[in-house]
Amino acid sequence: MADNQETLLLKIKEQGDLVRKLKAAKESGEKIQEEVAKLLALKAQIKTEDATPQKFSLKTAKGTRDYNPQQMTLRNGVLEKIIAVFKRHGAECIDTPVFELKDVLTGKYGEDSKLIYDLKDQGGEILSLRYDLTVPLARYLAMNKINTLKRYHIAKVYRRDNPAMTRGRYREFYQCDFDIAGQYDPMVPDAECLKVVTEIMDSLEIGQYVLKINHRRLLDGMFEACGVPDDKFRPTCSTVDKLDKSPWEEVRTEMINEKGITPEAADRIGEYVRLNGGVELVDQLLKDEKLSKTKAAVEGLQGIKLLLEYCELFGIKNKILFDLSLARGLDYYTGVIYEAVLTQPIKIGNEEQTVGSIAGGGRYDNLVGMFDSKNKQVPCVGVSIGVERVFSVLEAKLAAGDISVRTNEIDVYVASAQKNFLEERMKICTDLWNAGIKTEQSYKKNPKMLTQLQHCEENGIPLAVVLGESELKRGVVKVRNIKTRQEDEVPRENLVQDLLARIAELNVKENGTA
Amino acid sequence: MADNQETLLLKIKEQGDLVRKLKAAKESGEKIQEEVAKLLALKAQIKTEDATPQKFSLKTAKGTRDYNPQQMTLRNGVLEKIIAVFKRHGAECIDTPVFELKDVLTGKYGEDSKLIYDLKDQGGEILSLRYDLTVPLARYLAMNKINTLKRYHIAKVYRRDNPAMTRGRYREFYQCDFDIAGQYDPMVPDAECLKVVTEIMDSLEIGQYVLKINHRRLLDGMFEACGVPDDKFRPTCSTVDKLDKSPWEEVRTEMINEKGITPEAADRIGEYVRLNGGVELVDQLLKDEKLSKTKAAVEGLQGIKLLLEYCELFGIKNKILFDLSLARGLDYYTGVIYEAVLTQPIKIGNEEQTVGSIAGGGRYDNLVGMFDSKNKQVPCVGVSIGVERVFSVLEAKLAAGDISVRTNEIDVYVASAQKNFLEERMKICTDLWNAGIKTEQSYKKNPKMLTQLQHCEENGIPLAVVLGESELKRGVVKVRNIKTRQEDEVPRENLVQDLLARIAELNVKENGTA
Repeated sequence: MADNQETLLLKIKEQGDLVRKLKAAKESGEKIQEEVAKLLALKAQIKTEDATPQKFSLKTAKGTRDYNPQQMTLRNGVLEKIIAVFKRHGAECIDTPVFELKDVLTGKYGEDSKLIYDLKDQGGEILSLRYDLTVPLARYLAMNKINTLKRYHIAKVYRRDNPAMTRGRYREFYQCDFDIAGQYDPMVPDAECLKVVTEIMDSLEIGQYVLKINHRRLLDGMFEACGVPDDKFRPTCSTVDKLDKSPWEEVRTEMINEKGITPEAADRIGEYVRLNGGVELVDQLLKDEKLSKTKAAVEGLQGIKLLLEYCELFGIKNKILFDLSLARGLDYYTGVIYEAVLTQPIKIGNEEQTVGSIAGGGRYDNLVGMFDSKNKQVPCVGVSIGVERVFSVLEAKLAAGDISVRTNEIDVYVASAQKNFLEERMKICTDLWNAGIKTEQSYKKNPKMLTQLQHCEENGIPLAVVLGESELKRGVVKVRNIKTRQEDEVPRENLVQDLLARIAELNVKENGTA
Repeated sequence: MADNQETLLLKIKEQGDLVRKLKAAKESGEKIQEEVAKLLALKAQIKTEDATPQKFSLKTAKGTRDYNPQQMTLRNGVLEKIIAVFKRHGAECIDTPVFELKDVLTGKYGEDSKLIYDLKDQGGEILSLRYDLTVPLARYLAMNKINTLKRYHIAKVYRRDNPAMTRGRYREFYQCDFDIAGQYDPMVPDAECLKVVTEIMDSLEIGQYVLKINHRRLLDGMFEACGVPDDKFRPTCSTVDKLDKSPWEEVRTEMINEKGITPEAADRIGEYVRLNGGVELVDQLLKDEKLSKTKAAVEGLQGIKLLLEYCELFGIKNKILFDLSLARGLDYYTGVIYEAVLTQPIKIGNEEQTVGSIAGGGRYDNLVGMFDSKNKQVPCVGVSIGVERVFSVLEAKLAAGDISVRTNEIDVYVASAQKNFLEERMKICTDLWNAGIKTEQSYKKNPKMLTQLQHCEENGIPLAVVLGESELKRGVVKVRNIKTRQEDEVPRENLVQDLLARIAELNVKENGTA
């Protein structure tokens, strides 16, 4: 505690003693009141300065972060573009609570269940933070007995992971999901999900990409044809999923040593998973000796073939790659699976960064039924956009100076060149706000001219109204273009109209050159 | 479990036995593979139907709810209007994590701390869900050593309360805050907060309202002048805060019986708190025998007087009521406090509903210092918009049929009058999506014409493209106005342009009459 604080405490003690003495001596009320007032004034000082100073380290929880205005501007810009695509395809918006009954999440995430955040038992229900938006969607559909829905949901989810935060991975992070629920004809909604992904990737302009597709039934059939026992399909699938990061030799070793696959089976798998291509590969595999005899594989291949036809009709065939190594980690997929992957590293400042997967999803026909007491199924297909990776790339670009953002949208700053113009500034602000003009002024009575202009420059505010005594006497104000520094006199009574015209002109220019 | 499930399990067992027998007998691989395939096919059936049916009651956590598309549309509409006002005043947007270190929240909410949700200790940090957005803002400012910020923050907060959910109160609910942090001249940012509230209230068009204001220093001075011991200022203040719901007699009884205030002091308070008015009341109280001798009261009154002057300049004086009974529950306010209250019940269907307070806030100059190791203060003033009450009113109006909402924004539905037009529909959808037109089609190969038109009517889709064999042969399609049922033939190659023109026209009509 600082010295002046100790002095203050001492003074308070002395004054308190004095008040007690006066009261004990039954002094006049007025006299006592006077001294009490002094005591309170002293205490008021200490209230201001002596609120318990914090003793713990000031930080956000591990794996989480604040978003500052620049980050929020980037984030909102990305989400706006994505939502525009969702709406173009008729998606409705829903939201669910951040926590669910723990039972809702139990048994849905396999090994990853250990990453679920539980709430403390404070009496009442046992709750957990949501781990994704897919299980809450399934719960929502089953609970409300909804059979068809095309919805998007953008919200934070929670995983007690040990993420590499430098790479845009956190314990609290956004998911951005688009799903189509309903019993429809094969691959029609699935193809639209792929179209949605391409529109989003194109709209984000984040780089060249490829949209890899595969089918869970084909993977199952392939494992079966290669001699993998059926209880090892899922573990084998998880291992194959690592092929995007690890070379085949490592994946093969894991299959044999950790998953108990025979070397022969692993080698057979290895031949398949290095294949990728288009419809000609589908046809080739439909003639493959082993696969053509496996029902699941044939089903998967026929599904892929139909999907590729629809992709051609949607004009996105050149973005699609049928890739037998794509496996996707999650257990609940039952049909087509897909992933959008950037094909080139992204340039950030003078460095290049490999980003990888930006979106992924697939068909999951059995999840909703898990919540229905009669096991009634609602088939679903959807895609999740990896917006955190996009945010992370944009933030890195911002830090490297490759891009810049404006964190406010103010068009006009009301400034004064001399003292004592607060009241006049307030009147002008009122007129501008009431006309819908985005307006700001200094909260100081007598701000310095330089400070006011600097504020405009630092915040990208294009226009300033500058009040001066001589101008006001003549019934005019100056309007200054911050960039060009040109100033024009405008009659006070025409100010709103003049500014509206200037703002409209600036917007045209901006959109014209953007 | 259903009978057919039991039959299925029996079949699987038999088939499994068969496979084991064949393997034991070292039968040919092909033979075994064939029987394994049958086994897998059987198992696949059970996978679909026998995923653990849920045994717990299917619900959201107590005090929480899902938002369906209609509710989300209302919610997003309200937030859009509010954000427009925030942006008009130059506010930046920030976000903070949903949970904080428990220590950050400790000691900030007084008695209400018992309502904080704690996370389970799963190893690592001890965390709690945020209780409001103000303490996280203070933590953010102190942690990042930020001295000035004008920000808005819209996010969910969590309270383990037992709320009356029918009245729009929940355990998970939105807060929508606007705050100005920084050392500025008295009442300048405070007055802007009031201006922001009036603009929001006007923009929401939710009914007549009054913006009550008071000052914590005046309340302190009033309590002092009435003979309340200074350690009872805060509890007395909480009791006064109940005057909006309870009559004075009840409040008086609570003061005397529960807070230990003398009947004389309570009666003196009673005389003050029934006062309300404008600047003339301020002048009257500045001459009041007791208050004029109390430093805190005079400070408070002078603050109110200045604030009223600024409100006049901002053109909102007629909305403001200086009301000595306004106390606000929270401990951390240090200066002006305010609350926007609807003055009339809202008509919902044939009933009237009293809504009360829609927004509230005030000045809190000492909160940020609680997080700074050197107790460095950042004065703040802000307002929180009670959006949940607004949502609740709109939802009630929706339920009563007073308002309606569209949950999607689709402009064009691509339909077919005959079978086998899926491919043609897909091609047209592609053209429209690529032109930015919000377009939808059925996910069925051969949907019924009536079903397609009904979908348009139920979802408020204004236009349909109808494909027919004879038209396509002639290179045209029909464009149908769903409301008027008028159909026009449009050449296929002009379709995009024709639809863009129709949509533009519809938008003009809608905005013209809205």
